[in-house]
Order: sequence, then structure tokens, then C-alpha cells
Amino acid sequence: MEAVNREIIARMASDVSLIPELASHLIAAGGKRIRPLLTLGAARLCGYQGSYDVLLATCVEFIHTATLLHDDVVDESDRRRGNATANVLWGNQPSVLVGDFLFTRAFQLMVETGSLEVLRILAGASSEIAEGEVLQLVIANDMNSLESDYLKVIKAKTAALFAAACRVGAVIADRPMAEAQSLDDYGHNLGIAFQLVDDALDYASDGETLGKNTGDDFREGKITLPVLLAYSKGSEAERTFWRRVIERPEEQTPEDWAQALAYMERHGAIQETMARARLYGQKARQALAPFATGAMRDALAEAVDFAVERAR
Amino acid sequence: MEAVNREIIARMASDVSLIPELASHLIAAGGKRIRPLLTLGAARLCGYQGSYDVLLATCVEFIHTATLLHDDVVDESDRRRGNATANVLWGNQPSVLVGDFLFTRAFQLMVETGSLEVLRILAGASSEIAEGEVLQLVIANDMNSLESDYLKVIKAKTAALFAAACRVGAVIADRPMAEAQSLDDYGHNLGIAFQLVDDALDYASDGETLGKNTGDDFREGKITLPVLLAYSKGSEAERTFWRRVIERPEEQTPEDWAQALAYMERHGAIQETMARARLYGQKARQALAPFATGAMRDALAEAVDFAVERAR
Repeated sequence: MEAVNREIIARMASDVSLIPELASHLIAAGGKRIRPLLTLGAARLCGYQGSYDVLLATCVEFIHTATLLHDDVVDESDRRRGNATANVLWGNQPSVLVGDFLFTRAFQLMVETGSLEVLRILAGASSEIAEGEVLQLVIANDMNSLESDYLKVIKAKTAALFAAACRVGAVIADRPMAEAQSLDDYGHNLGIAFQLVDDALDYASDGETLGKNTGDDFREGKITLPVLLAYSKGSEAERTFWRRVIERPEEQTPEDWAQALAYMERHGAIQETMARARLYGQKARQALAPFATGAMRDALAEAVDFAVERAR
Repeated sequence: MEAVNREIIARMASDVSLIPELASHLIAAGGKRIRPLLTLGAARLCGYQGSYDVLLATCVEFIHTATLLHDDVVDESDRRRGNATANVLWGNQPSVLVGDFLFTRAFQLMVETGSLEVLRILAGASSEIAEGEVLQLVIANDMNSLESDYLKVIKAKTAALFAAACRVGAVIADRPMAEAQSLDDYGHNLGIAFQLVDDALDYASDGETLGKNTGDDFREGKITLPVLLAYSKGSEAERTFWRRVIERPEEQTPEDWAQALAYMERHGAIQETMARARLYGQKARQALAPFATGAMRDALAEAVDFAVERAR
């Protein structure tokens, strides 16, 4: 990961100094770096010995960072990873454009691997992410959204890049299609589990857990599984509450947040969300079965535990 | 171009209906389609017979459309191609995300050509565009900006994609490096000429010329060549005027626009900008010299006339 960190710094360089300034604000703040770790882990598991794993890990982190920059503009977020967001510090304009820069730089890095298959996988994942983000916007503030819509969103906006980050590890190691598919399945299920936990943690009771604001999803009227579960199990009065706070979040009162948490508690919405996350986590672990046991496979299995059991 | 139009419609399809809706609003509005025309023209000039020219023309138009969507958000524009902008009709959020979608879709199309060289060229151009847009933002509202900064901006934000759109025509036709470079030079110089004219037209006296608002650059305090020329040739009083209106555009009064036009008229700033455009246009035409004379070379030479002599 040290090599990845060096590569990240080196590759976001530009004569236009605002670009590395703004990008490094977000990248230096750390975050979990789980996606680049997956690429390194998958490549290692496949016995890869070259240096493209570091390049692709960088590339995956750039794609992720670009989506965060655009997300924060789209969501008008003011905190991320415990810091003020780039859109607050520099404005929306450079956030959008530096996001574009990182995106395009990621594609330049992929070209360096000389692998069209790598480009096919990561261009596909990037396109899916954008599609998922638009769908998320479309279903926001709509309590008629289905659980299947929500699943579609998180598969596209999160699981697609997790899956791709893992799959390219097998591709650069020149492993057979079946291994690439197993790593894809691992990443896909891990990504779903990860996002389910993220969405559960947004209804956690204190704001320090993720370095981002707890209650953000609620205040934006985002449709996430905890809300859908509380709604489907709620009384008529509760459903009226959810319709009001989610469909017209601008009318939320300061008491609504505590009320929402109480309703979720009553119906075990957070617990059930976590239980679902554990199921996907199990699927992720099972996808590792075809690989030889050893330290690397253990590490990837532990990544699942980390994703599912973190915080709270 | 009919094949390109069909391909554009087919390739912006998505299950998330907001994506084609929003994208087609901008794409259907037309615009000059000069970039895809360049790709088709360059490929034809190189004797290309396959179908990747249509694919790459689509891809180039997608990249361009993505940058327009993001530009309109960044500039808070309300009109484009004679219509309300997507950010006004649907809001900033989907405009940013559908822009991302078109960007990533463009890279998926490139992968289909199976040419890493095509990907290298267009990823490089895309990255340059983003860099140029950030630089443009950095020098905006700063009357200390140099003409060389301005040139750097338009080379990156406009000429890079013109050059790449032409160059890939030679690449898919498998022509020698020298021909690819000549087409690159042609596109590069044409792009600079095109942007110079665009920036001159923004100070034209009526708003119908481009289907976009005349005076936009002025109201945003953008640094363009007409402003730099009027400033450098202006009296002390005029310089004070330019500093005020460009550095603090929010303080502009309704009379400032007419005053700006008068100062430009006095120093021939628009005429000189157009003269420079013609010089780059000439360089573009010269770059075509290595190619055999014929209908296709004539068409590309005429594209220069169109770019330089349009409107007014």
C-alpha cells in the first residue's frame, strides 16, 4: 500500500496546482482504501509478480475519489472523512472538474497496462456507477421505491467497482476466466455487504463513526434499506411519518431524527440490515473457496469481517 | 453522419430513463457536430473502409457532450444551443451524473475498437480537457492573467479534442505516424481557431448568433483574448474599468456591457481576435498538404472556413 500511496501522489500531479491540492485534500484524509487493497490482494492471491497491481490499485482509488467528489457536489455534503468537503472548501466548480480529471487520469493509467480486458472491465464498472448514481437520484424522496430498486442502486454504485477492483487482479495475473469470475463474485458480494453496513451506520446514534455526518441519508430523504424495512413494518401512523420526512425532507423538524431512530429500533430495521450484510459477507467468503488456502486468502476473508463488523 | 446520429441514440440508452432523456435534450438540440464530422472526415481522408469511424465519432461527441453538461453546471449557464440548459431543467445533480455516464460510455465504445492507441489518444485528450477547464477556472476574474495562460486553456479545453478526433481517424485506418501527426496538427490548429472565434462571438452584439447568450463570458468575468487585448491596449481609465468588471463581475451595472463593447471596438480587439483565428486556420489548412488532393481534403479545408468565417 505504500507503493500505491506513492503512485497516487505521483499520478495526480499537474501543472495546474489546484488539481493536486484539491485531490490530495480528499485522498490524504485517508479513508479506508479498501478498493486498492482489494486489487493488491486479488493480484497477490493469483500469484501476480509484476507492478501493474500498484498501477491498477491507484486507478481504482482515482475512480472512487472522482465519484466521491461528484457525490459531495450532488448531495451538497459538507463533511467527509472527518473534514470539510472539497465543495465547501473550493466550491462546486473545481470539485466537478477535478473529479473529471481523476476519472480521465484513471483511464490513462489503465492504458499503461496494455490490457484491453482491464479497460473493458473498469470502463464497464465506471459506467455502471454513473447509472447507479442517477437511479439513486431518481428514487430519492420516493417512498414507493422498491427494495429491488435499492438493491439495483447499491449493486451499481458500490458493488460494481468492488467486483472490478478484484477481477482485474486476476486479469493482469493472466489467470483463467473462472478465477476472474470468482474474484468478481467475491468483490460483488463484499461490495453489497459494505454498502448495507454503510447505510445502517448512517442511522447510528453518533456522528464520529464514519467521519461523515450520521443522519445525512435521512436529511436528504435517501431511500436505503433501513428506511424501507421500517416503512414496510410500520403502522399507518409510522408510514405517514416516513412519507413526510423522506418525501419532503426540507420540512423535517429537529425531533424527527430521534423519532426515526425509535421506529427503526422498534422494528429491528438496523439489525435486519446488518443481518443481510452478513449474508452477503458469507457469499463473498464462499466465492474464495476455489483458491488455495493461505495467508492471502485469509486476508481477503478478513476484509469481509472488517467490512461487516466495523464500527457501532 | 446519419449513421453517427443513430449510433448516438443507440448508445446512450439505459434502463434508467432519465439518462437518455437528459442526454438527448442536449444532443437532439443539434449543435454543430463538428467533432464527429472531423473523425469521419479524417478516417475517410485516410482511406478507411470499416465501421469504427462511426463508433469513434459517437465517442468523441459523447466526450464533448459530457464536458458541456459539466460546463453548464460549473458556469451556472441557463441557455445552450437555443434551449434551456439541462441544469436548469433537471438540476445540477443529474447533469453532473449523466455527464459522468456519457464519459464512461465513451470509454466503453473505445474499447470496442480494440485499439489501445485510440484509448491512449482519447484518454489523454480527456485528461487535458479537464486540466484546461480547471486552469480556466483558476485564471477567471484575474486581469493579471497572461495571453499565454489563455492560450494554454483553449489548447487544452478545445484543441486537444479536435486534434484527437482527427488523429484517431488515421489510427483506425492504420496509417503511418506522420499522417496521424498531420491530422493531429490540423485538428489542433482548427480547434484553436474555432475557440478564438467563439470567444470573439461572445462579444457580438446580438444573442442569436450561437444559440447561447452573448455576453456570458463577460458576465462571468472569463479571461478571453478580446478582453486581454482591450486591456493591454487600453488607457489607465479603461484598465480600471476592466479590472472592476472582470475581477468583480457581480458588481457589473447594466451599462457596463455597452461600455465593454465600445472599448473593444476602439482597439479593434474583436478584429484582432478574428485575425489570429484566421492565422491558426491557415496553419490547419497547411497541415493537410501531405494528403492527396480530392473531395475529402477539400471538405476538411472547408471546415476551416466554416469555423473561422461563421456568423457575425
